[in-house]
Amino acid sequence: MASMCIKEMRLHPIAIADPPLRSSYGLHAPFALRTIVELVSDGGVTGISETYGGEGPVAALEAMRARVEGMDPFRLAGLWSSMQSEARAEMAEVRGGHTQTYLVPGENPLDRHARTFAAIEIACLDLIGKAIGKPVCEVIGGRVRDRVPFSAYLFYKHGGGGGFDEDAREDEYGEVLDPKAMVRECTQMISRYGFREIKLKGGVLDPDLEIATIRALREAFGPSYPLRIDPNCAWSVDTSVRVGRELREELSGGGYLEDPCASIESMAEVRRRLIAEDNHTPLASNVAVTNHTDVAAAARVDGVQVVLSDPHYWGGLRQVQYLSHLTSVLALGLSMHSNSHLGVSLMAMAHVAAASPNLTYACDTHYPWQSERDEVVSGGKVPIIEGFVSIPDKPGLGVELDRDRLAQGRERYENIPYRKRDDEAEMRRRVDPNWRRILPRW
Amino acid sequence: MASMCIKEMRLHPIAIADPPLRSSYGLHAPFALRTIVELVSDGGVTGISETYGGEGPVAALEAMRARVEGMDPFRLAGLWSSMQSEARAEMAEVRGGHTQTYLVPGENPLDRHARTFAAIEIACLDLIGKAIGKPVCEVIGGRVRDRVPFSAYLFYKHGGGGGFDEDAREDEYGEVLDPKAMVRECTQMISRYGFREIKLKGGVLDPDLEIATIRALREAFGPSYPLRIDPNCAWSVDTSVRVGRELREELSGGGYLEDPCASIESMAEVRRRLIAEDNHTPLASNVAVTNHTDVAAAARVDGVQVVLSDPHYWGGLRQVQYLSHLTSVLALGLSMHSNSHLGVSLMAMAHVAAASPNLTYACDTHYPWQSERDEVVSGGKVPIIEGFVSIPDKPGLGVELDRDRLAQGRERYENIPYRKRDDEAEMRRRVDPNWRRILPRW
Repeated sequence: MASMCIKEMRLHPIAIADPPLRSSYGLHAPFALRTIVELVSDGGVTGISETYGGEGPVAALEAMRARVEGMDPFRLAGLWSSMQSEARAEMAEVRGGHTQTYLVPGENPLDRHARTFAAIEIACLDLIGKAIGKPVCEVIGGRVRDRVPFSAYLFYKHGGGGGFDEDAREDEYGEVLDPKAMVRECTQMISRYGFREIKLKGGVLDPDLEIATIRALREAFGPSYPLRIDPNCAWSVDTSVRVGRELREELSGGGYLEDPCASIESMAEVRRRLIAEDNHTPLASNVAVTNHTDVAAAARVDGVQVVLSDPHYWGGLRQVQYLSHLTSVLALGLSMHSNSHLGVSLMAMAHVAAASPNLTYACDTHYPWQSERDEVVSGGKVPIIEGFVSIPDKPGLGVELDRDRLAQGRERYENIPYRKRDDEAEMRRRVDPNWRRILPRW
Repeated sequence: MASMCIKEMRLHPIAIADPPLRSSYGLHAPFALRTIVELVSDGGVTGISETYGGEGPVAALEAMRARVEGMDPFRLAGLWSSMQSEARAEMAEVRGGHTQTYLVPGENPLDRHARTFAAIEIACLDLIGKAIGKPVCEVIGGRVRDRVPFSAYLFYKHGGGGGFDEDAREDEYGEVLDPKAMVRECTQMISRYGFREIKLKGGVLDPDLEIATIRALREAFGPSYPLRIDPNCAWSVDTSVRVGRELREELSGGGYLEDPCASIESMAEVRRRLIAEDNHTPLASNVAVTNHTDVAAAARVDGVQVVLSDPHYWGGLRQVQYLSHLTSVLALGLSMHSNSHLGVSLMAMAHVAAASPNLTYACDTHYPWQSERDEVVSGGKVPIIEGFVSIPDKPGLGVELDRDRLAQGRERYENIPYRKRDDEAEMRRRVDPNWRRILPRW
C-alpha cells in the first residue's frame, strides 16, 4: 500500500445523446462529448472519473500522461500547486476577457488546468477509496450528509430526445417553448425524480415570457418549491433589475437570480438597485466568479451572494471543499453547477456535496436529460429518489464502468464529425442560420 | 478496513520540564502540562496526538468519550460540524471579551471545541495513516514540501532549565534578560538547530531594550536572518507605531511585527499610521484573529497581514489547510504559532505545514526548550536539521510512544499541585508578588 503508484492512464472519449436544449449560448447538439478517465494502480485497482469531452480536454490530459503515470495518487496537492504555477503566466495573458461569459463551461481558458487536474484528482480519489475500502466522501474528510439534494433543471427545448436517425432517443418531454409546456416538463420531471427545488434555464425567450414561465411554475407547484432562473448573462443591468423586481416574490424563499448579466461589477449594480427597493433576492453566479479570487472580489462589492461550485472546473473535490469553506467564511451561499453528464460525474458531485458543510442549495444536474442507453455506469443510471442521490455504502465513488456501454460511447464519438461543443454553431445549423450570441440580448 | 472504528480512547495527562521563560502573560512554570491522546481501532491500530494539558482539556476530551468510542475515524467533518453547532450558543455568550488577549493559548473559551476536536482529529489521521501505510500529509491531500522550516524562538528568561530539585533540567541557556545575553541564546540555538528565521518573544522588558535586542540580533546575524518580534499585546497603539518605526529596517525582508497591541481595530490603526510613513512592515496575529471569521474581518480593515495558524486550537490539520487556502485567497501571509510541546505535536505541525501550499514564514516552535528527558516519542527528540523538520517515510505522523517516558510524564503530572497553566500566578510566585498583567503595559 505504501508504495502504490499509478501505472497507467486510460482516456475514453465518448459521445452521449443530448436533447435539443436551449440556452443563451445557443442549442445543444444531438450528442454531447464526455471523457472517461481510468487510472490503474500497480496493485491493479482502477480509479475512474468523468470530465469534459472532445479534443481539447483529451489533449490536455494526454499532455499530463508522463506526470500521472508513476505518481502516487495521494500526492495531489503537489500536482495542483505545480499545475497552478505553470498556468499562472498563461492565465495572465487571457485575463481581462471575461472569457467564461462568452464560452461554454469547459472552454474557458482561465480554468483549463483546473479542469485537467480535476479529472486526475477525482480518479485518484476513487482509486484511493477503492484501495482502502472507503467511500470518496470519507477519503476527503468525512460526510456531513448521507444524501445530496439535487434540483430539477428545466430547459426550453425543441422537439427531439437527442441523437439522430437510428441512434435517436425517445423524446420524453416534447417541445417546450412556452410557459404551459414548461409546467408540463416540470411536472414530468418532478413526478419521476421527486426534486424539491426548481431551476429554469432562461435567456432564451423574451424576458416577459420567462417571467410568465416562472409565475406559471410558482402557480403550479406553490411556494414550497424554491425557484431559480439562469439566463446566462443574456440581460442588461436594466433588464436584470426589472426581472428581479417582477419576480421578487417568486425568487424569494430559497430561490435566486443566477447570472442575469455579465461581470461582477454589473451584478453589483443590479444588487444595489434591488436592495434600494428592499428586494433581497440573492444573485448567484458561475460566470462572474470562476475561481477563489473572484469569490473574494465579488463578496467585497456584494456582487454575488451565491456561488456555484462544480468539481469539474473548480479543480476537483478538495477545491470545492475549499470553496465551501470560503463561502461560509464570507457568509455566501453555495450551490453547484452542472453540465451534460453521466453517472460518474453525478457521483463525484454527490460525494463532494456530502463532504461540504456549507451547501445551501440543491445542486444542479443535467442527469435527467441523459438517456439510460448512454450511461456507462454498471447497472444503469444512478437513482435520484425524492430529489436526492444517496451516498452508496461502497468504496470510492461507488460506481464501476460497463465496458460494453463505454465501447458504444467511444463508437458514437468516432461516428460524429465534431470534437468540440459549439452551441452557437448548432443553433445556426438547426434553428436560425443568422443566429449569433448577443450579450446582452435584452 | 471498511468497518474500522475506534474501540478505545486513552488520555494521558503529563507534565514536562519547562524553563522559566518570560512573556507578557508572565512566567512559565517549572513544568508545562500536556495531554497525550491514544485512539485504538478495532483492528488494533493506535493513532496518537498531543494537546494542551491539565484538567480542562482532559475533561473536555473525557466528555467526548461516548461519541469517539465507536466512531469511524474517517468521519471527521460530521463531528466537527456538530461540535461547532453545539459551541455556537456557548461562543455567543463569551464573544466580545477578546478573551484570547487576556488568556494564554489553550484557555480561550472561544476555541475550546476546536481544541478538543483537534486532539481527536489528529489522532484519527495518525490512525488512518498507520492503517493504510501513508504519512499523514498524504492522507490530508498530499505534501507540497518534504521538509518544513521552523524558526528560532527566543525568550527572555531567568536562570534555570526547568523542573526543580532532583527533577531539575540542565540550564543550557542561562539567564537572558538583556540584548547581549539574547545574542548568545540565539547563537547557541542556531548553532544547534540551524534555524534560518528568528522570533523574539517580547513584551517583557522596556520597549527600548527590546528594540536594542532586535538591533543586536540583526547586527550579529545579518539581514539573511529575517526577524520577528511578538510582545503579545503589551504595547499601546502609540508604542506599537514607535517600535514599528524604529525597527522598520530590521523587521523588513521576511520579518514581521506580531500582536504589538490588542484587537483588530488597534492593529488596523497601527497599520494605517505605519503605511502613512511608507512603512510596510507586516503585522501578524494569533490573538486578534483566532478563527476564520476573524481573518476575513481583519483583512477587510487591513489590520493583519500575516495569520498564525496552529492545528491545536484552529481545529486540527484540515482546518489549518482551510486557513492556508483562505489566507491565500485574501492575499495574506501564513505562519504558525506554537506552545510548549513534545514531538507528537511537532510532527502534527510539520505534516500540516507540508500539506499547506500557502505557508509564507517558518513555523514557530518551543521544541528546543523541552528536554530530551521529557520526550515521550520513541527514539528521543525529533531532529531539527538546518532549521527544518523532515517528513519521515513512515505511516501516520511517523512517531510512536515510548511507554516508559509516558509513564514518567504521568508521574510528574501526579506530583505537581497545579492543573492549569497560569503564567501570571507563576510570575507573582517567583519574581514579583505584586505583578499583574497590564495591557497595554507600555
